[in-house]
Amino acid sequence: MNAVKAYAAQSAEKPLGPFQIDRREPGSTDVEIKILYCGVCHSDIHTARNEWQGSMYPVVPGHEIVGKVTRVGDSVSKFKVGDTVGVGCFVDSCGHCNNCKNHKEQYCENGHTQTYNSYSQDKKTITYGGYSSHIVVTEGFVLHVSDKLPLEKVAPLLCAGITTYSPLKRWNVKAGDKVAVLGLGGLGHMAVKIAASMGAEVTVLSRSKSKAKDATELGATNFELTTDPENMKRLANSFDFIIDTVSALHDYNDYLSLLGTDGVMVLLGVPPEPSTVQAFSLIGNRRSVVGSLVGGIKETQEMLDYCAEHGITSDVEMINIDQVNEAYERTLAGDVHYRFVIDMASLV
Amino acid sequence: MNAVKAYAAQSAEKPLGPFQIDRREPGSTDVEIKILYCGVCHSDIHTARNEWQGSMYPVVPGHEIVGKVTRVGDSVSKFKVGDTVGVGCFVDSCGHCNNCKNHKEQYCENGHTQTYNSYSQDKKTITYGGYSSHIVVTEGFVLHVSDKLPLEKVAPLLCAGITTYSPLKRWNVKAGDKVAVLGLGGLGHMAVKIAASMGAEVTVLSRSKSKAKDATELGATNFELTTDPENMKRLANSFDFIIDTVSALHDYNDYLSLLGTDGVMVLLGVPPEPSTVQAFSLIGNRRSVVGSLVGGIKETQEMLDYCAEHGITSDVEMINIDQVNEAYERTLAGDVHYRFVIDMASLV
Repeated sequence: MNAVKAYAAQSAEKPLGPFQIDRREPGSTDVEIKILYCGVCHSDIHTARNEWQGSMYPVVPGHEIVGKVTRVGDSVSKFKVGDTVGVGCFVDSCGHCNNCKNHKEQYCENGHTQTYNSYSQDKKTITYGGYSSHIVVTEGFVLHVSDKLPLEKVAPLLCAGITTYSPLKRWNVKAGDKVAVLGLGGLGHMAVKIAASMGAEVTVLSRSKSKAKDATELGATNFELTTDPENMKRLANSFDFIIDTVSALHDYNDYLSLLGTDGVMVLLGVPPEPSTVQAFSLIGNRRSVVGSLVGGIKETQEMLDYCAEHGITSDVEMINIDQVNEAYERTLAGDVHYRFVIDMASLV
Repeated sequence: MNAVKAYAAQSAEKPLGPFQIDRREPGSTDVEIKILYCGVCHSDIHTARNEWQGSMYPVVPGHEIVGKVTRVGDSVSKFKVGDTVGVGCFVDSCGHCNNCKNHKEQYCENGHTQTYNSYSQDKKTITYGGYSSHIVVTEGFVLHVSDKLPLEKVAPLLCAGITTYSPLKRWNVKAGDKVAVLGLGGLGHMAVKIAASMGAEVTVLSRSKSKAKDATELGATNFELTTDPENMKRLANSFDFIIDTVSALHDYNDYLSLLGTDGVMVLLGVPPEPSTVQAFSLIGNRRSVVGSLVGGIKETQEMLDYCAEHGITSDVEMINIDQVNEAYERTLAGDVHYRFVIDMASLV
């Protein structure tokens, strides 16, 4: 075992602080990574504060990881020391269920291992995430990262990027499609960039006029206020696809009515309580409400390659690790454009 | 104009009774049909009793129509006098919107004309349905019906048949798929027959043990009680597709949990109030909730041809027109196996 520096929450009520964790000695299929950058995802906050229940303290959050390979096991064939790599939301899965065999490890039927606050496949060892100096991951769950793009801006692609890319691909969004993005935060700003890069006509739907300028700069063609009932009426039946990133409670029917025939609304946010769905909102125009969870490893690699090719990165604000508690508060207040990324060189 | 015999509701509170309506003289593209059989759909009751609001009295219900061609207009090319034909839930649409051009007339962007209680495309003339001796319909909305099958059992295919066939095709249900049917009524019994004919392994989900025998006879492989929580737990993640025909309020999340990865639940019933959907019910396994409304004309013809080829008809109980009010009560009480069909020869 190797003791490495980390930042952890010791309980739901306490701020994160310095902590030391043990990482396993790399096994034959393992890759050891020195972490350069780690994004701050809203899930980190939910877990650090036990808002989804089930937090196992100490919690070391972080699943938007970019770093350099420092050691590899004997059987590792895809990576060598010095490679730039990424690690996303999960680090292992059973490998033999139907979903694993079909590159959908995120839906592993036997339970995948999340990057933090999760049981390893031995069902005993708890995982620690990217707020640490190093991580050891089996090579099948490590991604190649191009050096073409600024690495700190690549880190959020490992969660916010794949979470938005995957449904856009799955539901075949293509040039000319009309895509609405609901909520312009970490996920929303990536959804705008990626959908626009696919040739879609992107509309940002927001309750706040102040987002209009950013929406355009990110690549949206249109910006529409959802607080104006006349506006909403005018937009009825006009979108092919809605990406709903909002995790506060909202009425799905209000947005379903904006979808045209065969339109799809994908839920990425998890409101604290169930929302309502009126059957006729779906039946009247053969609409769908769907959910989507990150993406498989193969698809995540495809997304990283796609973003490298198209020059797509996240808009980030860099922080040092000792600013992470403040960054959590600012994230909750919506005061971030659009993702905090921790410079892990500050973890000393 | 031609005066024809019909049965109509004169108000929401009154039982249906004899009435005389005017049918237009067949125009150049029109087909005049002598109605032999007309199914009794739950929508007939909702409309006769103004339960969906917007009923325009007198209401002549009926949209599961089979009959014989008695006259055709000069330009009619697809039908001749004596042909056996069907008419379903709608009799016209704008013809030039995207949906009409793509054989999705049921979602006509300018509003299709329903078979009864609806405005014709002139936006003035109100339509009267199949509880009448004759109907005049433009040929593009008339279906060919094979004489291979008992015609009284074919009539319900025009609504219950296409409503279940269309989503099974749209979401590509195929041999080996696990399909659950929720609610074993007019729609549900057709869903079982059609899904089984496609090679799916069909499970009927019901609150009542008394449906088990019928489920098997209709072609279901399995029958499962939804009232037993242990049963529901055991069925988690086990279906590819759920056809939900229930129009009473129920919690969608209970049934969503039964879908495997990429599973689809299609809503065909419209409960009086919205149900709830918990985002994680969808996200956790990339599930979908979708709606579907009957089917387009081309697809309805395909369904009729498919049913003729596979020997699929509805299970019906024949009634005379003067029994229709009693049939409504029995339909509401669930006392019908599985569709009442009116022998229109009784309308004298």
